[in-house]
Amino acid sequence: MAKEHVKAIVFDVFGTVVDWRTSVIAELAAFGRGRGITRDWEAFADDWRGLYQPSLEEVRSGRRDWTILDALHRESLVTLLDRSGIEGLADHEIEHLTRIWHRLRPWPDSVEGLHRLKRRYIIGTLSNGNVGLLTRLAKFAGLPWDVILSAETARAYKRQREAYLRNLELLNLHPHEVMLAAAHNDDLEAASSAGLRTAFVVRPNEYGPRQSKDLAAERAWDVVTDSFLGLADAMGCERS
Amino acid sequence: MAKEHVKAIVFDVFGTVVDWRTSVIAELAAFGRGRGITRDWEAFADDWRGLYQPSLEEVRSGRRDWTILDALHRESLVTLLDRSGIEGLADHEIEHLTRIWHRLRPWPDSVEGLHRLKRRYIIGTLSNGNVGLLTRLAKFAGLPWDVILSAETARAYKRQREAYLRNLELLNLHPHEVMLAAAHNDDLEAASSAGLRTAFVVRPNEYGPRQSKDLAAERAWDVVTDSFLGLADAMGCERS
Repeated sequence: MAKEHVKAIVFDVFGTVVDWRTSVIAELAAFGRGRGITRDWEAFADDWRGLYQPSLEEVRSGRRDWTILDALHRESLVTLLDRSGIEGLADHEIEHLTRIWHRLRPWPDSVEGLHRLKRRYIIGTLSNGNVGLLTRLAKFAGLPWDVILSAETARAYKRQREAYLRNLELLNLHPHEVMLAAAHNDDLEAASSAGLRTAFVVRPNEYGPRQSKDLAAERAWDVVTDSFLGLADAMGCERS
Repeated sequence: MAKEHVKAIVFDVFGTVVDWRTSVIAELAAFGRGRGITRDWEAFADDWRGLYQPSLEEVRSGRRDWTILDALHRESLVTLLDRSGIEGLADHEIEHLTRIWHRLRPWPDSVEGLHRLKRRYIIGTLSNGNVGLLTRLAKFAGLPWDVILSAETARAYKRQREAYLRNLELLNLHPHEVMLAAAHNDDLEAASSAGLRTAFVVRPNEYGPRQSKDLAAERAWDVVTDSFLGLADAMGCERS
């Protein structure tokens, strides 16, 4: 059975473990109320996330030297503030907004599921977030990781093959001993082609009510489920 | 006050968090009983640790390419087995013995102290152990790290300056925002010269009853104590 040799389960984080969109919108709206700034914060959040892949692609393509996600988030934010005509923010305010990505709320099943999985497996992140971001996010959200692995520890952004393989090497495990859990088919596709086991956790509201992709598994991943509790069941973890 | 800006406390592990010597002797002796091999296991454990710094120095000096501690531990073990006339061990037995370093017991105060410190600070390893070793050791010993930092994530062994500075960069913190806790004056000396805050935790039995060094603080470190509970008190953490 494909799952029987798995010793570690690593997780995509944004969208898979935490509900970034609702969290970002809520923090932007709270900031706007405090500063008397009115904008369409849902659109602002979507635009901010919209600049994510293009900013990573600058690094992946080699056009830009290695840059951590905190710095990319900040640059995208500054671009959008400018585009939205929001002027005169102090540096500490821009930093506070950039760090919204350190304060994202987990999906309702995430923490309980991770605690169950942790009793049987090494559990870790495998995210494009930088180590500092993921460490602070874990403390904020109560995510009980055994290890923080990241694009930064691999010096390569997903979906580059090295982002998976260099992090497995840090765990001293072979690809078939590691499972990636993600809400995104393309992440699982890249992990699978690097030899990892795969778990698809559908998160139909990650992109809000108009989400059009990743609503179903596009391949027969090793596990297909709709929560971390389902993942824990599928991976033979006892119920709490 | 030197301590007031501290946001993260990182820990030397072997000797500071875990009692490697008692653990290694107990496992070697149990292995010997099972295999009917009688040796002076205390001396064997001390000799094994005695090969530690020379093996690191091969890498630090650049005479040898980057090599993780698991591999160095295994080579030293094979050298000592040969020297002790212990022959014919299967590969899985050598691997089992090498991984004794993944199964070390914490000092009595370590786990409680770390839980207290974790509520107020980012807590992490800053050890010469490789990431896989430190992750498995944490699960074995119940060490609630927020983040695993290592010579491996810095690609430099302590006491090289880069071992400290590259890991602070992974936390996105400045040197004065990070404290190293260690039972070894030379580790604190190197950390201090890189700008970190310092906590000396005396572990007078790390090297057994004949320990002759690190029995006292050799400088006025920011904190000097004899347990992680004392460290938690000194760093303003509430009692459990």
